[in-house]
Amino acid sequence: MDPQPTGEGVPARSRANMTEEEKRALKEAKKAAKEAAKREKAERKAAAARAAAEASSKAQALVSGIEYLSINDEPSSAFGSYRVIQSKCPTAGSGRTFVSVSKLEGVTVGEQVWVRARVHKIVVTSQVAFVTLRRSLDTVQAVLEGKDLFKWARKNVTAESIVDVYAKVSTPEGGRVEKCSVSTVELAASKIYIVSRADEKLPMTLDDAARPLGDTAGSDGEAGGEANEQDGAITRPRVTRDTRLDARVVDLRVPAHGSLMRVQSGVCQLFREFLYAQGFTEIHSPKLIAGASEGGADVFELSYFGRKACLAQSPQLYKQMAICGDFGRVFEIGPVFRAEKSHTHRHMCEFTGLDLEMEIFEHYNEILDVLDGMFVSIFDGLEKRYAKELAVVRSKWNVRKFKYWTGKPNLRLKWPEAIEMLRGAGVEIGDFEDINTEKEKLLGKLVFEKYDTDFFMLTHFPSNIRPFYTMVDATDGRYSNSYDIMMRGEEIVSGAQRIHDVELLQVRATAMLGEDGIASIKDYVEAFKYGAAPHGGAGIGLERVVMLFLGIENIRECSLFPRDPQRLTP
Amino acid sequence: MDPQPTGEGVPARSRANMTEEEKRALKEAKKAAKEAAKREKAERKAAAARAAAEASSKAQALVSGIEYLSINDEPSSAFGSYRVIQSKCPTAGSGRTFVSVSKLEGVTVGEQVWVRARVHKIVVTSQVAFVTLRRSLDTVQAVLEGKDLFKWARKNVTAESIVDVYAKVSTPEGGRVEKCSVSTVELAASKIYIVSRADEKLPMTLDDAARPLGDTAGSDGEAGGEANEQDGAITRPRVTRDTRLDARVVDLRVPAHGSLMRVQSGVCQLFREFLYAQGFTEIHSPKLIAGASEGGADVFELSYFGRKACLAQSPQLYKQMAICGDFGRVFEIGPVFRAEKSHTHRHMCEFTGLDLEMEIFEHYNEILDVLDGMFVSIFDGLEKRYAKELAVVRSKWNVRKFKYWTGKPNLRLKWPEAIEMLRGAGVEIGDFEDINTEKEKLLGKLVFEKYDTDFFMLTHFPSNIRPFYTMVDATDGRYSNSYDIMMRGEEIVSGAQRIHDVELLQVRATAMLGEDGIASIKDYVEAFKYGAAPHGGAGIGLERVVMLFLGIENIRECSLFPRDPQRLTP
Repeated sequence: MDPQPTGEGVPARSRANMTEEEKRALKEAKKAAKEAAKREKAERKAAAARAAAEASSKAQALVSGIEYLSINDEPSSAFGSYRVIQSKCPTAGSGRTFVSVSKLEGVTVGEQVWVRARVHKIVVTSQVAFVTLRRSLDTVQAVLEGKDLFKWARKNVTAESIVDVYAKVSTPEGGRVEKCSVSTVELAASKIYIVSRADEKLPMTLDDAARPLGDTAGSDGEAGGEANEQDGAITRPRVTRDTRLDARVVDLRVPAHGSLMRVQSGVCQLFREFLYAQGFTEIHSPKLIAGASEGGADVFELSYFGRKACLAQSPQLYKQMAICGDFGRVFEIGPVFRAEKSHTHRHMCEFTGLDLEMEIFEHYNEILDVLDGMFVSIFDGLEKRYAKELAVVRSKWNVRKFKYWTGKPNLRLKWPEAIEMLRGAGVEIGDFEDINTEKEKLLGKLVFEKYDTDFFMLTHFPSNIRPFYTMVDATDGRYSNSYDIMMRGEEIVSGAQRIHDVELLQVRATAMLGEDGIASIKDYVEAFKYGAAPHGGAGIGLERVVMLFLGIENIRECSLFPRDPQRLTP
Repeated sequence: MDPQPTGEGVPARSRANMTEEEKRALKEAKKAAKEAAKREKAERKAAAARAAAEASSKAQALVSGIEYLSINDEPSSAFGSYRVIQSKCPTAGSGRTFVSVSKLEGVTVGEQVWVRARVHKIVVTSQVAFVTLRRSLDTVQAVLEGKDLFKWARKNVTAESIVDVYAKVSTPEGGRVEKCSVSTVELAASKIYIVSRADEKLPMTLDDAARPLGDTAGSDGEAGGEANEQDGAITRPRVTRDTRLDARVVDLRVPAHGSLMRVQSGVCQLFREFLYAQGFTEIHSPKLIAGASEGGADVFELSYFGRKACLAQSPQLYKQMAICGDFGRVFEIGPVFRAEKSHTHRHMCEFTGLDLEMEIFEHYNEILDVLDGMFVSIFDGLEKRYAKELAVVRSKWNVRKFKYWTGKPNLRLKWPEAIEMLRGAGVEIGDFEDINTEKEKLLGKLVFEKYDTDFFMLTHFPSNIRPFYTMVDATDGRYSNSYDIMMRGEEIVSGAQRIHDVELLQVRATAMLGEDGIASIKDYVEAFKYGAAPHGGAGIGLERVVMLFLGIENIRECSLFPRDPQRLTP
């Protein structure tokens, strides 16, 4: 970044030594310079405008085809490519009503409809052309009527192109088209126009992208390109995750992949609905901050007008400051940045944090009650509202359904019991030693066997393995008022009661961060000087919730455009 | 940031030249080094744990007071300070039920209640002590019963402390306490305990912070500290915006200031509700990107594991790529970063963007219809759901109510008509010249006079002043299929139909960005090669919507912790 430029003109001190004439001259010189700069800017702008106008007429000439007009001016040809749709038809629209693919089974057989959809596949024989049309999660079969139509289609319609089809809704031969999700009707198409043509050469076909590759490591270490695998007698191409993620825009069109993103959207919606009903206020805390939010390591740094700034590793300090600002209960959904060089199935350098923070009256169990109710509401809500998406995902990732308790509070397991369970399974571990991913997974397995659940809250973590702002246990300072929430043996939530007492906070921060560390969080510590209610909260990893609810093997599948140490594009 | 470290150990080539013995020796040396590192790490951890444990017991000793226990073990004293509330009371809670200040008027007079609230003010005479308690937007008067209680309170209870009060709900003398928002009842308090004590020395009193300062420029240029102003006979201190923002945590407690944030939360909620009902999917696009999203200027850069990365200036390219990925309609609420050195009342370096993008069938009017309906739903919804907050804000910022049309589509004003209106008012301006803030405001005034609305859509912007991805007008390439939405004469939305045709996009991008510019958006342009539906959208500035709906003079008031070229803290 450029450093902040120093002030324009002559500093005030030297100006004091000038004569009146000198001052006048200086003023005029400045004025002239300003006008020259203005003129230059105007000229630059005019030149850019000329270039743009030229370019635009050049482009216009490039894009030829059938004009997209109103229904009264419909093109005489029954097929062809539209010119680029440029909002030229009357402002009230062409008069066509488009029917969505997913709604076609609700249309009376024999009716004529317009459908806009993608060409999933086109199969043309000498006698007939079948086009599988796809729109989001749904597919339908269209049969092109007339030899001219399918002759033209064979030559011009490519897979993944977007087309407008005018067709009669019909009953297919045999009553069903098995390969399509809309199976009880098909389309007898008398007109077909290309809205946007896809290049013949796709980065991969959707069918290939959709085929599971089995578990693969992170995006790291994988070779790009295709990997072939014997599948019965036929060798079907398999596409590596890296190749898919490089062509993410095409990859997301695979119904199972797009569905994961729709489920992600659903988690956010259900999270907010529950919290709004519980009196929470949504906040947006700054991502550009002066000091690291979670200690000095793994932070992205940048120059902020010449000063050092960090990208927030969590909204932790700010959501607590919002509590000090008397919002009572707050939540935030926003990006979280971690400069971790982790190459695992569950780490990313940017992910979406679902954060909440709330005042408590007496006990952090008040927070666990909210979290418990909230997660059950999310899990129940997904099954209810996203049944179609979940079915699509489960047809690719055929994983045992996620188990949690309903009708009673979910399991709260204390740290010492967890350690005992691990020891019972032969693990050597100290009372206050952290558990790694492997032990975490084993604990999940043991809990599942003993308690029949994939979902539990692990409480009373040793205070030495939690951040400085965590409230220590009142009766045994070696433990803390903290918790993680686990899904299928992996952490998806970390939370705690926080220290709201300024003296205690200062002592803990000094011990754990040192004097330098405390200097960078001065504003945060200050906030507790002016009265602070007891409070606590939790931070949830959105992509992990999606991943573990559905048993997906890699978190990158659950992020729209994932970021890891290797991947900054697309 | 650290560059990505090079691989560990000896490169493969020199290893090939080693003897078996050398290889073994190398292996062992590596193993020993690894173990030493492990031991050192364990020791460091143990030392930190010891320090933390010591610190925590040290802190425990610091924090003395009355134990917070269950109702059965209630402290014998009727007043005092609690020890730090550390979740020590039984897990089911103490047995107390706390009543929120806002609900006190619903309690039967004569009943005993527990109330936890902040001390807004305490006035102690020789005979009686009045404590004004505050919780969020509400205040209530408590009268301390008994000489011991108010003697202790006079010495120990500071403004902004949080207290627990045990009191009988009573009818105040004269039937009303005018100065409190809860006015028809007061509290006869027989017990009072300090939960968290505020320092005597506050950065400012809430009353001072609440007093309007009149319009001031940005945070820039303002001197810190207090500014006194004659107000009738009494000189009341006025607190500058900079002083307030430096102590934002206390500043947010001012009901009018906190209410602005609640209204902000409401805008987001209403935005999403409307769009969910219209079939939109929420997305989270990456903020760490390889190239600038809106051209090279005003972008924050950082090092991403040794590579150059930028902070997204908008989710523009990614929301369009989501459309190419077949989501149909998407929205995003997220931070937007602009390294602009603007010192105005309406620019910040980080703000919250409400973005949407949708496929269109025929005309970008489809987008304007969605935007129109959405904004009306937001404005109506705020008045209905946030009536209390709006009243509080309006009691400080007494600005004419925002006017918009309901029951009919809102005004869509074409660029040429806007230019004509400005010329009619004596402004010299070219047909394709951009309008600056001043002209924008004048236009807003003229539109208000002619059309009786503060809300309108300005369409058909000249194509030379819009970004490269904007669709040009089909009949006159000098104009474009773009629009801004204006509130009280200021821009809050910018949007357009986008170019979905890859050839046209390449031509426009090359003309407006140059060959280098196009290289940095390669993935984006690629996305349109594989078929793209016509689409468009809009980007909305959340804080601006709040600011202009309510007529607030400075955008910093509408951001939780604002960021501008001068301000990176708190």
